[in-house]
Amino acid sequence: MTETAPVRDDAAREAHDLYGLTPDLLRAILEALDREDAIRLEALVVPLHAADIADLLEQIAGPQRGLVIEALRPDIDPDVLAHLDEPLLSDVRERLGMGEFSRLVGALDADDAVEVIGGLDDGLREEVLAAVPAADRRAVQEGLGFPDDSAGRLMRRDVVAAPMFWNVGQTIDHLRSATDLPDEFYAVFAVDPGHKPLGMIGLGAILRSGREVGLGTLVDGEPVTVRADTDQEEVSYLFQQYGPSEVAVVDGAGRLLGAIAFDDMVDVMSEESEEDVLRLGGVAGTDLHDTIARTTRKRFLWLLVNLATAVLASVVIGAFEGAIQQIVALAVLMPIVASMGGNAGTQAMTVAVRALATKDLTRANAARVIVKEIVVGLLNGLLLAVVMGVAAWLWFRDPALGGVIALAMVANLLVAGMSGALIPLALDRFKVDPAVAAGVVLTTVTDVVGFFAFLALGAALLL
Amino acid sequence: MTETAPVRDDAAREAHDLYGLTPDLLRAILEALDREDAIRLEALVVPLHAADIADLLEQIAGPQRGLVIEALRPDIDPDVLAHLDEPLLSDVRERLGMGEFSRLVGALDADDAVEVIGGLDDGLREEVLAAVPAADRRAVQEGLGFPDDSAGRLMRRDVVAAPMFWNVGQTIDHLRSATDLPDEFYAVFAVDPGHKPLGMIGLGAILRSGREVGLGTLVDGEPVTVRADTDQEEVSYLFQQYGPSEVAVVDGAGRLLGAIAFDDMVDVMSEESEEDVLRLGGVAGTDLHDTIARTTRKRFLWLLVNLATAVLASVVIGAFEGAIQQIVALAVLMPIVASMGGNAGTQAMTVAVRALATKDLTRANAARVIVKEIVVGLLNGLLLAVVMGVAAWLWFRDPALGGVIALAMVANLLVAGMSGALIPLALDRFKVDPAVAAGVVLTTVTDVVGFFAFLALGAALLL
Repeated sequence: MTETAPVRDDAAREAHDLYGLTPDLLRAILEALDREDAIRLEALVVPLHAADIADLLEQIAGPQRGLVIEALRPDIDPDVLAHLDEPLLSDVRERLGMGEFSRLVGALDADDAVEVIGGLDDGLREEVLAAVPAADRRAVQEGLGFPDDSAGRLMRRDVVAAPMFWNVGQTIDHLRSATDLPDEFYAVFAVDPGHKPLGMIGLGAILRSGREVGLGTLVDGEPVTVRADTDQEEVSYLFQQYGPSEVAVVDGAGRLLGAIAFDDMVDVMSEESEEDVLRLGGVAGTDLHDTIARTTRKRFLWLLVNLATAVLASVVIGAFEGAIQQIVALAVLMPIVASMGGNAGTQAMTVAVRALATKDLTRANAARVIVKEIVVGLLNGLLLAVVMGVAAWLWFRDPALGGVIALAMVANLLVAGMSGALIPLALDRFKVDPAVAAGVVLTTVTDVVGFFAFLALGAALLL
Repeated sequence: MTETAPVRDDAAREAHDLYGLTPDLLRAILEALDREDAIRLEALVVPLHAADIADLLEQIAGPQRGLVIEALRPDIDPDVLAHLDEPLLSDVRERLGMGEFSRLVGALDADDAVEVIGGLDDGLREEVLAAVPAADRRAVQEGLGFPDDSAGRLMRRDVVAAPMFWNVGQTIDHLRSATDLPDEFYAVFAVDPGHKPLGMIGLGAILRSGREVGLGTLVDGEPVTVRADTDQEEVSYLFQQYGPSEVAVVDGAGRLLGAIAFDDMVDVMSEESEEDVLRLGGVAGTDLHDTIARTTRKRFLWLLVNLATAVLASVVIGAFEGAIQQIVALAVLMPIVASMGGNAGTQAMTVAVRALATKDLTRANAARVIVKEIVVGLLNGLLLAVVMGVAAWLWFRDPALGGVIALAMVANLLVAGMSGALIPLALDRFKVDPAVAAGVVLTTVTDVVGFFAFLALGAALLL
């Protein structure tokens, strides 16, 4: 095995650079899997961070996954489960067996256990819950009582709170003697006697202050607070906007129920921004790891909607059959006008959809953004009209045809710019997610306007 | 003014909900701006968080921006500048005047000052740097020495480090007496005598432990570490993957230079995921707030590239002029085949581009993802072929035409699925950003294959 030893050393060393699952380490793991070399596999995989092990399990094929799990089985890190998405989690559960799976879930922090159990079918929940230590079980059950993707599902309940009238010394003494502290926490919430959060104090401020300093003097404004039923998208926005280390979660009466720390949020933050990309691409609610059947079904529905709009565009073309028969050049050039409108509209739409998601596009600037997109569409339409007008003239040796495509281009890009801004704004106003629906509405508009403008002008001016 | 008082109360109350700049508060601010009511404006805007004031300034028109800045001027929060993007920052700088602008930058934390000054033209940098307090100036200058978008630009230099052999008591005593601590910090780095980071200790672990506990026993593995020249995209990935509170930044020799805390990263994290959306939409490097001239120029280049691909597709159509002249229905239906291929390919491409960005798509699963996309493309192609084949048959009362579009649909969707996965992977292999280039390459493929398959089959089978 002399030829593989250097790879192993490099791979092991590289694992300490940047992130764990480097291309070289991955190559070494795949080689070990090919040779079913369990000892080497264990040596390569066990030192990895739970998040990297989860990534590995998600990337390899089913049988390979079995080998990795067997190599890990003696000391599998429960946190791996918290990093796995469905449908991989089910697959890993089946490979581990319910007993081992439940034991691992029981070893998770309560908030991670809520996340994992929340993804299970109802029939399995009870069995896994029974493996959760009694001390945590009630917290897990209450967490599961909140809606999917809500702050209540995400929060840790073992929040660190102290009465506002305590001083630093009392707080430190309490923390040293408390037995129910979370593994990681970043702030202490100062609460009133009704357990309502009055302020958040970063641990740095406590550590830097003398024992006699009152918590009240360390509080800097009200804490960022959400209700337990707040959607995680809002919570994610609050973290991005204000960068707090923790957000307080309260019940309807304003009492502190728990807290969400930034490290509970990082995957949610990437999940939420991910969602918009996938929606814009017409693949909402799907995942790289979905089965072929599920992927096909999800995508087919979207394609069917798009087919309807494509047929609508064809109906417009069909209205000009006579003109096309006389001037075939119209058929040759017409997709250019439609396609450039689609591209220009998509540019405007992408900016508008993202700006709506990040709350950068509001009633304060909506009118100006629409006007700007119309002007940009007009200017780019004029530029492209010159380029394409001359090209069509030279191609078909017909200056009038060049003029027709130039005019159609200006018209379609102007409409595209306007629609690219207007459609997302209108959808948002009517509470329809612009990322899902804007693209298909926009393409319908740019196709219909593009084909109609070009063919109608062609029929009017060239026949 | 009785009719506006309730709005004001509601708006002020709502400002304490979730995030500051609520639609109602924004409406109240816009009303105050319309009436140029400086007193009300001040009452509404001053209590806002710096991030919300920055959002407001970005959303309103130039003259309104002047009014808000005048209302804020007596006590403008310097952090507002750290939350502003170009070109707004330049506009605000001009409205404030260089003297006031420099004074505010001087009041920022060094890492924020680096960010703001880094965005200035070289000519202005010296003037603003002179306003930075002497104690910070060297740190700011060194920060500016690192490349744009690098860890060195982002890091705080006032990192909290302690020798590994200290105990909790010594560490707390040091923190209480230190005068150069950052406003917010979340961890202490345990370092060796050469100032190399050996471990990171969360402040929670320090607060929970007795004074006699050694830092060495609290260290939990090596800290997440990057070099100062690491790109912020990698740093952002590390935060999302491992959720550390701080990442250590080291020089080439591994010595601790500074640290990046999660709250320095939240805007970078959203910026980086934003970039991919914008690139996919053909609007890389642009911004809602760009001027019309800049927006038009940036987008025009992208449209020009797309025009070339659209012309290429037209050349394919041009090769079948004869067939179109005889069967105009071909011209009517051909955009459907191309457009459905484009949509299906975009679905596969969106998933692949995102999975590459999140490192979920690697050599471990590339082959399986390609095969899956081919199968999904084939299945959806078959389904849509049936739908569209029957539709075309009924529309043009020609079963053969229905057969032709059905066959072309299967071929194009199969190619689209394969290309949607292959093109991003190939671009990534050749170090081209798939988010920028994959869309235009894909559309070229699906247009050319779509038009060719349909028209060639039509010419062969129908003439």
